[in-house]
Amino acid sequence: MILEKQFINDHNKKLAAKHAASFSFLANQLEQEGHDVERIVSKIAALQIAIPSWALGNGGTRFGRFSGGGEPRTLEEKILDVGLLHAINRSSGAISLHIPWDIPSDAAAIKALAREHDLIFDAVNSNTFQDQPDQQLSYKYGSLSHTDKAIRQQAIDHNLEVIHHGKQLGSKALTVWLADGTCFPGQQNFRKAFQRTLESLKEIYTGLPDDWQMFIEYKPYEPYFYSTVIQDWGTSHLLATKLGRKAYCLVDLGHHLPNTNIEQIVAMLMMEGKLGGFHFNDSKYGDDDLTVGSIKPYQLFLIFNELVYGMEDPASVNPIPAWMIDASHNVKDPLEDLLQSVEAIKLAYAQALLVNKEELEAARENNDATQAQEILQHAYRTDVRPLIAEARKRVGAALQPLSLFRSLNVRKQLIQERGHKTVSTGL
Amino acid sequence: MILEKQFINDHNKKLAAKHAASFSFLANQLEQEGHDVERIVSKIAALQIAIPSWALGNGGTRFGRFSGGGEPRTLEEKILDVGLLHAINRSSGAISLHIPWDIPSDAAAIKALAREHDLIFDAVNSNTFQDQPDQQLSYKYGSLSHTDKAIRQQAIDHNLEVIHHGKQLGSKALTVWLADGTCFPGQQNFRKAFQRTLESLKEIYTGLPDDWQMFIEYKPYEPYFYSTVIQDWGTSHLLATKLGRKAYCLVDLGHHLPNTNIEQIVAMLMMEGKLGGFHFNDSKYGDDDLTVGSIKPYQLFLIFNELVYGMEDPASVNPIPAWMIDASHNVKDPLEDLLQSVEAIKLAYAQALLVNKEELEAARENNDATQAQEILQHAYRTDVRPLIAEARKRVGAALQPLSLFRSLNVRKQLIQERGHKTVSTGL
Amino acid sequence: MILEKQFINDHNKKLAAKHAASFSFLANQLEQEGHDVERIVSKIAALQIAIPSWALGNGGTRFGRFSGGGEPRTLEEKILDVGLLHAINRSSGAISLHIPWDIPSDAAAIKALAREHDLIFDAVNSNTFQDQPDQQLSYKYGSLSHTDKAIRQQAIDHNLEVIHHGKQLGSKALTVWLADGTCFPGQQNFRKAFQRTLESLKEIYTGLPDDWQMFIEYKPYEPYFYSTVIQDWGTSHLLATKLGRKAYCLVDLGHHLPNTNIEQIVAMLMMEGKLGGFHFNDSKYGDDDLTVGSIKPYQLFLIFNELVYGMEDPASVNPIPAWMIDASHNVKDPLEDLLQSVEAIKLAYAQALLVNKEELEAARENNDATQAQEILQHAYRTDVRPLIAEARKRVGAALQPLSLFRSLNVRKQLIQERGHKTVSTGL
Amino acid sequence: MILEKQFINDHNKKLAAKHAASFSFLANQLEQEGHDVERIVSKIAALQIAIPSWALGNGGTRFGRFSGGGEPRTLEEKILDVGLLHAINRSSGAISLHIPWDIPSDAAAIKALAREHDLIFDAVNSNTFQDQPDQQLSYKYGSLSHTDKAIRQQAIDHNLEVIHHGKQLGSKALTVWLADGTCFPGQQNFRKAFQRTLESLKEIYTGLPDDWQMFIEYKPYEPYFYSTVIQDWGTSHLLATKLGRKAYCLVDLGHHLPNTNIEQIVAMLMMEGKLGGFHFNDSKYGDDDLTVGSIKPYQLFLIFNELVYGMEDPASVNPIPAWMIDASHNVKDPLEDLLQSVEAIKLAYAQALLVNKEELEAARENNDATQAQEILQHAYRTDVRPLIAEARKRVGAALQPLSLFRSLNVRKQLIQERGHKTVSTGL
Repeated sequence: MILEKQFINDHNKKLAAKHAASFSFLANQLEQEGHDVERIVSKIAALQIAIPSWALGNGGTRFGRFSGGGEPRTLEEKILDVGLLHAINRSSGAISLHIPWDIPSDAAAIKALAREHDLIFDAVNSNTFQDQPDQQLSYKYGSLSHTDKAIRQQAIDHNLEVIHHGKQLGSKALTVWLADGTCFPGQQNFRKAFQRTLESLKEIYTGLPDDWQMFIEYKPYEPYFYSTVIQDWGTSHLLATKLGRKAYCLVDLGHHLPNTNIEQIVAMLMMEGKLGGFHFNDSKYGDDDLTVGSIKPYQLFLIFNELVYGMEDPASVNPIPAWMIDASHNVKDPLEDLLQSVEAIKLAYAQALLVNKEELEAARENNDATQAQEILQHAYRTDVRPLIAEARKRVGAALQPLSLFRSLNVRKQLIQERGHKTVSTGL
Repeated sequence: MILEKQFINDHNKKLAAKHAASFSFLANQLEQEGHDVERIVSKIAALQIAIPSWALGNGGTRFGRFSGGGEPRTLEEKILDVGLLHAINRSSGAISLHIPWDIPSDAAAIKALAREHDLIFDAVNSNTFQDQPDQQLSYKYGSLSHTDKAIRQQAIDHNLEVIHHGKQLGSKALTVWLADGTCFPGQQNFRKAFQRTLESLKEIYTGLPDDWQMFIEYKPYEPYFYSTVIQDWGTSHLLATKLGRKAYCLVDLGHHLPNTNIEQIVAMLMMEGKLGGFHFNDSKYGDDDLTVGSIKPYQLFLIFNELVYGMEDPASVNPIPAWMIDASHNVKDPLEDLLQSVEAIKLAYAQALLVNKEELEAARENNDATQAQEILQHAYRTDVRPLIAEARKRVGAALQPLSLFRSLNVRKQLIQERGHKTVSTGL
Repeated sequence: MILEKQFINDHNKKLAAKHAASFSFLANQLEQEGHDVERIVSKIAALQIAIPSWALGNGGTRFGRFSGGGEPRTLEEKILDVGLLHAINRSSGAISLHIPWDIPSDAAAIKALAREHDLIFDAVNSNTFQDQPDQQLSYKYGSLSHTDKAIRQQAIDHNLEVIHHGKQLGSKALTVWLADGTCFPGQQNFRKAFQRTLESLKEIYTGLPDDWQMFIEYKPYEPYFYSTVIQDWGTSHLLATKLGRKAYCLVDLGHHLPNTNIEQIVAMLMMEGKLGGFHFNDSKYGDDDLTVGSIKPYQLFLIFNELVYGMEDPASVNPIPAWMIDASHNVKDPLEDLLQSVEAIKLAYAQALLVNKEELEAARENNDATQAQEILQHAYRTDVRPLIAEARKRVGAALQPLSLFRSLNVRKQLIQERGHKTVSTGL
Repeated sequence: MILEKQFINDHNKKLAAKHAASFSFLANQLEQEGHDVERIVSKIAALQIAIPSWALGNGGTRFGRFSGGGEPRTLEEKILDVGLLHAINRSSGAISLHIPWDIPSDAAAIKALAREHDLIFDAVNSNTFQDQPDQQLSYKYGSLSHTDKAIRQQAIDHNLEVIHHGKQLGSKALTVWLADGTCFPGQQNFRKAFQRTLESLKEIYTGLPDDWQMFIEYKPYEPYFYSTVIQDWGTSHLLATKLGRKAYCLVDLGHHLPNTNIEQIVAMLMMEGKLGGFHFNDSKYGDDDLTVGSIKPYQLFLIFNELVYGMEDPASVNPIPAWMIDASHNVKDPLEDLLQSVEAIKLAYAQALLVNKEELEAARENNDATQAQEILQHAYRTDVRPLIAEARKRVGAALQPLSLFRSLNVRKQLIQERGHKTVSTGL
């Protein structure tokens, strides 16, 4: 489904007056506080969040999956869906492919289609946590860390193939989420598993183009429930350091034990110049993969506070991380969920941009915890929605993306086009 | 230290114009959304949060305590401190006494002093988790649940004495936080400990005046690290049910295992008409007793959403709960911490009042999770600070309590009056 | 595959001498400590653990499933598998059916087949957490708690149908695991969801034969990740109390928040006469459904210590709970996993039987935590494997079930019979 | 109190026959399994666990402390207490001093006293988490990471002084537990705090004798409840790597978030040659500091399995870690608690020594999780108490330390000597 520009214009026109009043009131307030509102709006407008190709259909749990309707049936339809999101919010201008769920058989055509929708290809993702129907050797007991060299080689080759696909599409990074782990004490020799993983990653690293990055994800548990080879940022960082300058850590918000101080991990990794990628979602218990900002919006803000600090630090040795949403839409319309997620990310980013860094550093120097909290919460409590809306308006996006999406009956149309019981490839 | 009315007037005058603009803009916006702003402001103004007598000094941990200066040395000074808070924010009009840390030797005089400061006496708290210097029998292995009847009797008598003090001051509730528990598997017979506790509570209940309430607190661990006799709301509810209509459960936000859905517990208890008391604080790991709203402000809002629902439900069988802050101020000025905590509570309350209940129920009926989230987050993202400020202005409180507190150099004066190394009784 | 008696005899003969020496040494030691070894061995031999019909194939996670080979393709084959287990260990003499995965189309034949293998039918399980292919209305947004009466009715009818099937097979209990819950704050009205659930359960309860029990399971999260209607034992207990004497709580070891003191919950429920069912498994993070005793064997022992206390208490008002294994076999042979699980349960049971209750109660009366720990750990540290083996020997089971299973190449035979890529119905 | 050798002899004589029977039965069994029992017994006998000087009195919580009687009042009495433990179990031949709680004013005399009791001085511990009465600058807002250079210098100087004391006593390691952290988001600049800490540690490192080691402890929270500068092994490892070859990580079992796989961390650190120290205790919720092995004995065994693997690996680059008990005795007699803790450590060590490494590695190579579990649990389920007892017997220790301790009425004597209400310095 293609969104005609006119729909956005009509939508924006209807909301224009109210928005203008809100924005101008807020902008005025912020200017009085010393903020450069124009600069902030530009930054917000510029932030692009990649959408993974597997996030366009309904996800499920081990207890089953309730499908929605109108899910994309092909890679082309997935690109159309991301294109639609991007047309609405102008903030989702990148797609992150998952191989082998979405192999671009005709790369040139796929690339052209993406370009039509103003989309680029972000990091490509390999998958060695599932067996594919035609696969020779099984990953049941691991892939890059497997005891059997032949299986490791198969997983290495798969990653090299993913790089190959990514090169054709213009990607510049490979994300390795290594699910390998164990369900029972004793099942694996921790040290040997680490060494085999390092060895495998080295072979992939060798095949990585010089202008590419490799992102190494970590996770404490699931799909295995006793140990994971790359269980935490410390292990990921150890691997990235041993591999070299093109290797980075990837933080997925849901991949932490209860109560982890994630913002501190973000700060440490950026300090070391090793934060490469970021997967957004939210969770209450484990890797729940809920809509970004739906459970702990303040934590999201605190994390963005570190990200902004790291990105704006002139002495920073860290590249701008690759942002992606990584959620599972079990009870919401996937496109609505993604619109809400992008909105939450932008809100947190805008709030972080409003933090008065000089005053904050001064409060910190004085160990004035009360004042430091006031400064952060002043930014957080500010209703920055007019800023986000303004940023969208300026780049031709909808003032209120979700509201437009609903008023256009997008899902109904998609169901008409694609049917009621389609199942998108992926989770 | 007595706050002269003039200070507040001057403070408010300086901020009047800016506040008026913000409030009028927000009020206008809310009226357009169909809200009765006057009614909301009145409700916010009416909410009073009790301050416990032990929260006016610096707290510590098992690793030690770093004192601040100017801590109140007597009950009288504690009342002065709460009076000062109340003068500033007109929202802390109640004090919750802890016996034996703060025994009112001359109850009439204490009551008069409190009245001078417009303070009433909220729930009184017993303490059977510590041994007092002159105490005959030790609570090392429990109190109301102890294996030794004599020790149970001592603890029962103490609770009856606390009721006695409370009656003299006009309190209408007794809070029982029973810390009793064990550090090692096997140490205690769970069932007998429960039965002995029930028996002891029955004796206290018998001594409870008919117009009083008894609040039964629960906590999973600390100060004992294997089991607690009243470990969760289920156990507290079992006891309250067995005791009778005057017995209620008390929820302390920090007394839950990681990831507990506290708002659901609140909803269940109000549904059953058994939520009697509420202790506010915030935490990241355990019973951290941090400033309210400093870690998980969205959760606080969700909890208030249930509280407001329960309080405004015409069919409700639940009394208005007794609100209290229960925090430990380890690195902040206690009075500043309390001002921030009251502010956070009022913000969450105001946000909850803004939730459009009809639309929310409609979305729920349709299982429209996206819309339900939009409705809640619309209220939550609204910057309600002007509403709180307006509510304060109308009752003669400061527009910006913390800012006034700092500009008056209150702590400096308290240190001059009371000294640098005073240690307040309590935690 | 039918296990010929001769195999067990041969196996036991080979191990007889070594076992006799171990058993006699241990028995002698225990007799000296005052234990009635014969009585203990009889009790161990008598304990039967039901096997659920879904546990005979490989389970998976939301990220996929790696099948093993030789999985049972029909209910008949499942009964054969349980029969095989029971032939080997004489401790798995019951099967717990899950409807609609395993609908007995010819109940008389199924019952006869089970009888052949000395199996009875334990609690029957309903399933309203998945949509079946032919199902009219979807459970995506709940079943017994759904906002739509028609969907609730469908779920009620399903439960009544499950009772119907159970009656034909001789079951005496219905297990209701209500997965209903939400993924997002606001999605559901907690109180209404509870009331609707209660109403639905009442209708099912009405259809429950008078000599049946209803088990109400609780779980904090998964498959929904913000709230579950029956989130904890307190909620389950509230429902069971409101329903009546035939309603009981069911404890699944994996259905608790991190660090929960489960043994205390068990004690409370037995004290109240409301512990009806028990699902065994083990876990490190969430509902990991690992082999019983593979992660926290000491906790398992502590739980059995409460179970034994509750069962042997002459004043107990609690019925003997229905025991069942509820695990997911992702990386092990399901039958081997079940053999290990039953073994772990029996070990914990035997250890609990060895606890010197008089001495323990004496230590508790004296608050002698050191001694209480010594008493428990003395029982726990005792190597009770010879007791378990002896109990098996006496009822014609194998001395070492797993070792026999492996030596007979059972899995290889099952694969030959059933094929490599069979997928058992269920998880 | 000095334990006369004769008491041990009498005690052992009484138990000799029973022990001999048990040991010989077990030894025979183990020999049949291919174990070299003599070698195992020697290893067990050789393992020495240091006792920290603060663990000889009762600990408490932030809610208070219940003292026991007869606590040591001086460093000399603490040495006597450790000497007594060592006389009883011959496994506690080292004492770990905490400065400034236990400053050896006359080092030569203290050293001589220790030598009399066959004790050496293990790692010395600095304390910058408390203010001492005479201290110039406060550590309320940090020490080695403080924003104020003067406070950092004070903390550095203190650590250098600790090294000085340690040198005089023959210690060879400094343990730095840096409690520095924050209670509120925003309070601290994470990156600057890390850099200041690194800088401070470098200065201390410069003062570290060449044959010394520096142990860097990590902890996620407490005494601060939002962040800790050295929050996890990743941060500790980063610091240790940046510091140099003398710097190592220290693992305290209680210093992890819920559900952490600690054994994997141990494996990783030993693989990297960076595991320097080990603090034993047990816990259910946080840093509960309970008796070793009282809550999760199987986890303790799994950790020892990694430690033994790392220590016996001929290619290991890791030194033998410094072992210490670090517990808080709130409801037990401290000496009894320590006897139980040492026993639990030795049991876990013995069980780990019984693991058949060749078979385990073979099972791992085959991804045979069932068999790997069988191998581990076979070792774990073996009742190894006769091995520990035998190891003690051979070096002149008591067969049953706790039982001897109780029969000698040691505590009663200590109370007579030292009084009822003594309070030992420390926690």
